[in-house]
Amino acid sequence: MEKISGLIDAPFTPMHADGSLNLAPIEAYAALLVRNGLKGVFINGSSGEGYLLSEEERMQLAEEWMRVVPEGFKVIVHVGSTCAKSSRRLAEHAAGIGAWGIGAMATPFPQIGRVEELVKYCEEIASGAPALPFYYYHIPAFNHAYLSMLDFLKAVDGRIPNFAGIKYTFESLYEYNRCRRYKNGKFDMLHGQDETILPCLAMGGAQGGIGGTTNYNGRVLTGILDAWKDGDLERARELQNFAQDVIDVICRYRGNIVGGKRIMKLIGLDLGPNRTPFRNMTDEEEASMKAELEAIGFFERCNR
Amino acid sequence: MEKISGLIDAPFTPMHADGSLNLAPIEAYAALLVRNGLKGVFINGSSGEGYLLSEEERMQLAEEWMRVVPEGFKVIVHVGSTCAKSSRRLAEHAAGIGAWGIGAMATPFPQIGRVEELVKYCEEIASGAPALPFYYYHIPAFNHAYLSMLDFLKAVDGRIPNFAGIKYTFESLYEYNRCRRYKNGKFDMLHGQDETILPCLAMGGAQGGIGGTTNYNGRVLTGILDAWKDGDLERARELQNFAQDVIDVICRYRGNIVGGKRIMKLIGLDLGPNRTPFRNMTDEEEASMKAELEAIGFFERCNR
Amino acid sequence: MEKISGLIDAPFTPMHADGSLNLAPIEAYAALLVRNGLKGVFINGSSGEGYLLSEEERMQLAEEWMRVVPEGFKVIVHVGSTCAKSSRRLAEHAAGIGAWGIGAMATPFPQIGRVEELVKYCEEIASGAPALPFYYYHIPAFNHAYLSMLDFLKAVDGRIPNFAGIKYTFESLYEYNRCRRYKNGKFDMLHGQDETILPCLAMGGAQGGIGGTTNYNGRVLTGILDAWKDGDLERARELQNFAQDVIDVICRYRGNIVGGKRIMKLIGLDLGPNRTPFRNMTDEEEASMKAELEAIGFFERCNR
Amino acid sequence: MEKISGLIDAPFTPMHADGSLNLAPIEAYAALLVRNGLKGVFINGSSGEGYLLSEEERMQLAEEWMRVVPEGFKVIVHVGSTCAKSSRRLAEHAAGIGAWGIGAMATPFPQIGRVEELVKYCEEIASGAPALPFYYYHIPAFNHAYLSMLDFLKAVDGRIPNFAGIKYTFESLYEYNRCRRYKNGKFDMLHGQDETILPCLAMGGAQGGIGGTTNYNGRVLTGILDAWKDGDLERARELQNFAQDVIDVICRYRGNIVGGKRIMKLIGLDLGPNRTPFRNMTDEEEASMKAELEAIGFFERCNR
Repeated sequence: MEKISGLIDAPFTPMHADGSLNLAPIEAYAALLVRNGLKGVFINGSSGEGYLLSEEERMQLAEEWMRVVPEGFKVIVHVGSTCAKSSRRLAEHAAGIGAWGIGAMATPFPQIGRVEELVKYCEEIASGAPALPFYYYHIPAFNHAYLSMLDFLKAVDGRIPNFAGIKYTFESLYEYNRCRRYKNGKFDMLHGQDETILPCLAMGGAQGGIGGTTNYNGRVLTGILDAWKDGDLERARELQNFAQDVIDVICRYRGNIVGGKRIMKLIGLDLGPNRTPFRNMTDEEEASMKAELEAIGFFERCNR
Repeated sequence: MEKISGLIDAPFTPMHADGSLNLAPIEAYAALLVRNGLKGVFINGSSGEGYLLSEEERMQLAEEWMRVVPEGFKVIVHVGSTCAKSSRRLAEHAAGIGAWGIGAMATPFPQIGRVEELVKYCEEIASGAPALPFYYYHIPAFNHAYLSMLDFLKAVDGRIPNFAGIKYTFESLYEYNRCRRYKNGKFDMLHGQDETILPCLAMGGAQGGIGGTTNYNGRVLTGILDAWKDGDLERARELQNFAQDVIDVICRYRGNIVGGKRIMKLIGLDLGPNRTPFRNMTDEEEASMKAELEAIGFFERCNR
Repeated sequence: MEKISGLIDAPFTPMHADGSLNLAPIEAYAALLVRNGLKGVFINGSSGEGYLLSEEERMQLAEEWMRVVPEGFKVIVHVGSTCAKSSRRLAEHAAGIGAWGIGAMATPFPQIGRVEELVKYCEEIASGAPALPFYYYHIPAFNHAYLSMLDFLKAVDGRIPNFAGIKYTFESLYEYNRCRRYKNGKFDMLHGQDETILPCLAMGGAQGGIGGTTNYNGRVLTGILDAWKDGDLERARELQNFAQDVIDVICRYRGNIVGGKRIMKLIGLDLGPNRTPFRNMTDEEEASMKAELEAIGFFERCNR
Repeated sequence: MEKISGLIDAPFTPMHADGSLNLAPIEAYAALLVRNGLKGVFINGSSGEGYLLSEEERMQLAEEWMRVVPEGFKVIVHVGSTCAKSSRRLAEHAAGIGAWGIGAMATPFPQIGRVEELVKYCEEIASGAPALPFYYYHIPAFNHAYLSMLDFLKAVDGRIPNFAGIKYTFESLYEYNRCRRYKNGKFDMLHGQDETILPCLAMGGAQGGIGGTTNYNGRVLTGILDAWKDGDLERARELQNFAQDVIDVICRYRGNIVGGKRIMKLIGLDLGPNRTPFRNMTDEEEASMKAELEAIGFFERCNR
């Protein structure tokens, strides 16, 4: 199976002021991402508030992204939800509109406590789009699915034919590497934490990744991969350190889903508010975040 | 606002062998519950796999329950989901079909970490059915919303006009009682753990409750309230102990959602399998559970 | 084996202003407890900062308590520590000075993750005082030993000859009752949460208990047992509610170990500061706590 | 302040078959470590079961290590315990016998919940040896002290004069790097997870580290640092992968404290059993672990 090379972006979902879906900015959004070195999008995931959208809205978004992206730019549709039947329908839809791949995180309800439950869940969904690569999105901080990913790979191997790999959004580079080395790299281990691309590269990983801060900091983050390829360690470190500085700021403003989405407005692409139960930033908070970003020179280096 | 008196049942959702919705058993189901002393149903909640159903299926279920229940038998519709807009539509629908009330647990995604987020979430949903009492369903073991319920009551008081109270499914009878005593009993504190009805009664609570094992053990559980009212402590203790014995068995068979649903088949009302990611019981497991229930004399005392 | 009837107090450890041990107040302390209806003391436990004392200090405290208590007033010595060999020596010492019993909570380091580890730990300690009843002190909020107490009882039964029962400081009255009913009440289940004595009594438990707020609120708390025995439910409820009101206040002042110890000064028995890493209250905090206690009429009803 | 360069070993504590202290193997132990490239020892820590030893035993161990190590081989004494006064005495003792430095993890009891508590705890201990560098040992998986280490550095900076840095045993290389970069590297950030030395080096860290598997795999682990220095990335990766393979095996045999200690016997330095509550390995388990280690060629590459 093809492995992803380079960085895929997890886009935010544009909304009108009243919280309804706003498809208008997506064309410009895609162009921005292409311009800044991203290789595709992983839509309707956590950054995209996928769980807070209806099934129909998720389909509309997928259709619009498919419409606007250039040839070769990958669209991976996150189809996970608490209703596996709905997720399977979303998988079928993704296949129908020609998406490159699909993905799903573990359902947060009922909380997944055993590998077998997770395999069953992924199997039911993946079978809805048997011709597309399926990625499991591991983000236990969000759904408490603290399972061994190595045990999971062993369990899906030979059982889910279109299983492609894992978007690994967890701190354990040890487990990441064990999964990466499974059967000499049988599965695609997408690195999923923008703050540790460089260390992961050193270990042999992070050839492909899915980022959340790539929305506004993609030039810097793809720069880490380029610098590493060029053997320029000092440049790679400087870029990784800067990426961490940006993340430090976001962490003080409710994280990427809320704070990061607001940064898009600051760089000229207003994507609107977040849905309930997220608490939207006030204008004062926005100004304060902007000042912190200016202090580290963010606006000279960010996506545009 | 009216307070609920007696026990409300949280029904399972009947399904065909392929996991699709099966509305046929609901009429008999309602009759069984009425016959055994239950005062209403709390549908599409955790026992009902509400989160694993589509919006449309949830509406169909609500309509069917409304169609079959007798006058005065309360139908409360759980409308919680990860998409507050969908939940609000479900609330509107519940009001439209004449349901007695609505309820919602905290969304498991994104995980609720602050009282303000929970209030905002409940507010958006409750406003969809302003004429119906809204109950917050507190079950932190399922969604990690470990928030102070007293702080929550203070925050909703005066802000959500149709806020009625809490279905309290947590172990802290101390916190339960603090909430119950808030402003001299302003809100309705429904007791939500069948294993501790008697101790809660002693403290002045549990005048109303919502049960999960009431589906098959309602006669015993409503018997606890009757015995307490009669001043017959020994009888109340014997019934509460027996209820715990039944729960002991269920805990060994994946809990109420899986094990309890299968008991319904054993007492003559086959409700079919559970949806993914639940692992359904094998025939061997069913036989083993049945033997354990026989050993404690369950089938002589259960609902019928 | 004799079962404990009535309430045992878990005393604070008196200290000089510099944090060194102060044995002087203990004689008056014991008299205060006797006067207010307590049946014994459980020393060097969590309220007593036992883990923050040296082995020698713990022995000195035990000797002083033995010296001052009247005939029939039980002294139970908590001997748990991270070093089982030290705990065993403390058990031998307790037996040597004529203590009534011993107890130990699970060591917090290494964290106990399996019943077999806990049994092994208790076995090594209990064998140091084979003629004394040994109580396991279950307080998982403090040491993360979230194990099934029923499984634990089954595992120690027949293996630790002097195992007497459990000081149960956890919210699950369901599990408490299952343990209480094990082999028709073979083991002594001491209730360990002052906020829920009444509900536990209703279920058939709480014949004996160990309290932390009994230090200053023992008259009220023993009053619950008396009222229940007299069949005066209203009085029992009023007392239990008041006990909860007091605990509400303490919870706002760093809990019983810090806030409760300071209350002793307010009722005339200054026991000094807490040891590191506890943060001691400022005078302003003390004044504020005092005002809150006055507002609920505490000083008219407390121990004296 | 001097920063540590290279790897320090966290030794196991030798015991007789009955669990009593055995000082005899320490001389040979030190020689083994020197031979295999280690730069010092961090004694009485988690690998050394320091919390399971008495104050006197900890002093005896420290004295013996000081007696046998060669000039320039650093002895750092872990002095943490639940009793800060005892820890302070151990710090004084360490200074008195000429140890190079001291360290302490957060007390597991009472559980540390705030930075201020941790600072107070470290301050009281560190002041016992004001001329020695003090290292905080961050290992939240063992003591639940999940605090921000950056906030902690800010809080100790200027308050604890002999604060040297952190032994960082946690997965977040992001937080590690933020701490490393604090005030241009003011504090010494010792890397504390043998499975991720290479990725940490890439990021600019891991110049110094403290290892647990260095006891038997030190040649391989110090080899990673050497290979990196030589610019031989492939060699560094091979060594890091092998180190992970060894750790994989240990994880199946109760981890390093139990499984790792038993490996010492397999490489010719029998250190005896673990103390209660650890469960010692059976002969069958030992044989099985040995076979797994042979299968990965461990015995050709390990320390000797």
